[in-house]
Amino acid sequence: MSSNLSNHQVRLAKRPEGLATRDNWQFTTEPVGEPAEGGVLVKTLSLSLDPAMRGWMNEGKSYIAPVEIGAVMRAGGVGRVVASRNPGFAVGDTVYGTLGVQEYLLVAQEQVKGLAKIDLRAGSITQWLNVLGMPGMTGYFGLMDVGQPKAGETVVVSGAAGAVGQTVGQLAKIKGCRAIGIAGGQAKCDWVVKELGFDACIDYKAGPSAVRDGLKTHCPKGIDIYFDNVGGEILDAALARLARGARIVICGAISQYNNTTPVQGPKNYLSLLVHRARMQGMVVFDYADRYPVAIAELSGYLKDGRMKSREDVVEGIDTFPEALTRLFTGENFGKLVLQVAKD
Amino acid sequence: MSSNLSNHQVRLAKRPEGLATRDNWQFTTEPVGEPAEGGVLVKTLSLSLDPAMRGWMNEGKSYIAPVEIGAVMRAGGVGRVVASRNPGFAVGDTVYGTLGVQEYLLVAQEQVKGLAKIDLRAGSITQWLNVLGMPGMTGYFGLMDVGQPKAGETVVVSGAAGAVGQTVGQLAKIKGCRAIGIAGGQAKCDWVVKELGFDACIDYKAGPSAVRDGLKTHCPKGIDIYFDNVGGEILDAALARLARGARIVICGAISQYNNTTPVQGPKNYLSLLVHRARMQGMVVFDYADRYPVAIAELSGYLKDGRMKSREDVVEGIDTFPEALTRLFTGENFGKLVLQVAKD
Repeated sequence: MSSNLSNHQVRLAKRPEGLATRDNWQFTTEPVGEPAEGGVLVKTLSLSLDPAMRGWMNEGKSYIAPVEIGAVMRAGGVGRVVASRNPGFAVGDTVYGTLGVQEYLLVAQEQVKGLAKIDLRAGSITQWLNVLGMPGMTGYFGLMDVGQPKAGETVVVSGAAGAVGQTVGQLAKIKGCRAIGIAGGQAKCDWVVKELGFDACIDYKAGPSAVRDGLKTHCPKGIDIYFDNVGGEILDAALARLARGARIVICGAISQYNNTTPVQGPKNYLSLLVHRARMQGMVVFDYADRYPVAIAELSGYLKDGRMKSREDVVEGIDTFPEALTRLFTGENFGKLVLQVAKD
Repeated sequence: MSSNLSNHQVRLAKRPEGLATRDNWQFTTEPVGEPAEGGVLVKTLSLSLDPAMRGWMNEGKSYIAPVEIGAVMRAGGVGRVVASRNPGFAVGDTVYGTLGVQEYLLVAQEQVKGLAKIDLRAGSITQWLNVLGMPGMTGYFGLMDVGQPKAGETVVVSGAAGAVGQTVGQLAKIKGCRAIGIAGGQAKCDWVVKELGFDACIDYKAGPSAVRDGLKTHCPKGIDIYFDNVGGEILDAALARLARGARIVICGAISQYNNTTPVQGPKNYLSLLVHRARMQGMVVFDYADRYPVAIAELSGYLKDGRMKSREDVVEGIDTFPEALTRLFTGENFGKLVLQVAKD
């Protein structure tokens, strides 16, 4: 079936300094092969666009190997099995995997274990990239395992309207905590409070002291858990408002990923001492064996209406470079998804 | 008995910017009173000089209230009961307490609970200010409770020849860990390795890349526990060498206490994410109810020779201003003690 198909791909052409532009990418087209014995062919439906992608474009060791120059850009996504020579997968199965920024992925027998069949009754394709996907898992295990929330505590999350933030704040509320968001712009803040049910949301674009003042107003007893997606000045403002025994979950630092100068260290880190607090990093992949438990819990909340989700869907693989940039300018509103093909 | 005695005191005259100088202090002399019903009079023998004192001189909230302008400078020390109207204390008892930088302290009944009788058979007066005192308690609970060492792990401690550092490294060895020190100058490094039995010690004064290179050499599998006394560049170098699941214990930041510019935040903090590591602050006073257990364990090590201690004793209350400065220039070699009166 696949001999007539062509596969459009986005490859890393050169490593960026600062924000990536179209020059950093190369668009290629290849014929689509047929699966060998034990393999499957997956057609990409939608891809997850995440701030972490910027880190994968850098040279040098991190928690995951960098994308090589000339390689198809790494991306997680949801696809459909369109040809199978593996008894575990049937044509028509919906799968989640590291599909890459391309229209088709030919998966050899040895790599088939990297594909997970997903059930669209638990959530839509875009929800599988959001609450039920990597961002949701990051929010779930970051909050529950690293943050260890107790009812009545105050949880603050930056990037509150983003993919991780919306899960963290809503889950904090479900667990009996107060949830305070930080987001860019009044529209996002309104949505976070009115739709998602956060107790308050601070617009970091409202002025140079907006975050500091907002945290003072909304966290009169200090912050028990700060879930940090952004780093920089906002992390410092949160450090300055910690409650005793606070936990800071570090899952990324959007504000620092495109730096051409050294990362800005949190100058208020000695607040960890004053408040007997800890700051801990986490990488979602470490929790892979517990994803099913988290997915079951979160899909229950989606079904009973206690949790909502919002995705910002951009269409067409050719728009990938500009779509990715929106994550860092704060233009996306909700989990950013690249729809490569309609279902 | 006390009517003929006079009490020489050192008071905080004005808050310093940067390093404190003689101008920041005021020397006063007062007659010594007699204890009221339930009170005691303590004669200061030796005082502990600690980097934390610099923080107490600043205005503003920290983990402990600042010393007020005009007040006797706060200091912990060992003294002798010279008059008592309290059945719990006899003349001649040796006590530990917050005596202040002065020759005598009159303790009212309500404050008597702040005095702890100590047993000079468990350790000398200077050891009671070192391994068996606040620095030892900081090292003990910081390493054991916050660091949670496991046999075979690599423990790195800055300020290794200092009061906290010597306890941390030797205790790490006793617990089956590798101990790597960081100290200023070859003499301190030699002592740390040859006398205290650390596996290695890095001289941070040996060149701009000495710490980075030394950690690479001596921690080939990364750092499991970094016990930080100093902050700044050394903290950043340690962050760059973490092992997976590393713990950083923050008990102070000597390099930052005299800053007139903002504190330098650890620009490598995202290493916490890459290595799933945590950085946690601690304040020794939180462990007060467990001091007796730690003192019993540590005094056992002092007696059986598994732990050694070194104190740097400066004599005379008038030398207090210059003595304190030595902590920040790195001139002291071992726990710095101000001997106010000979025993």
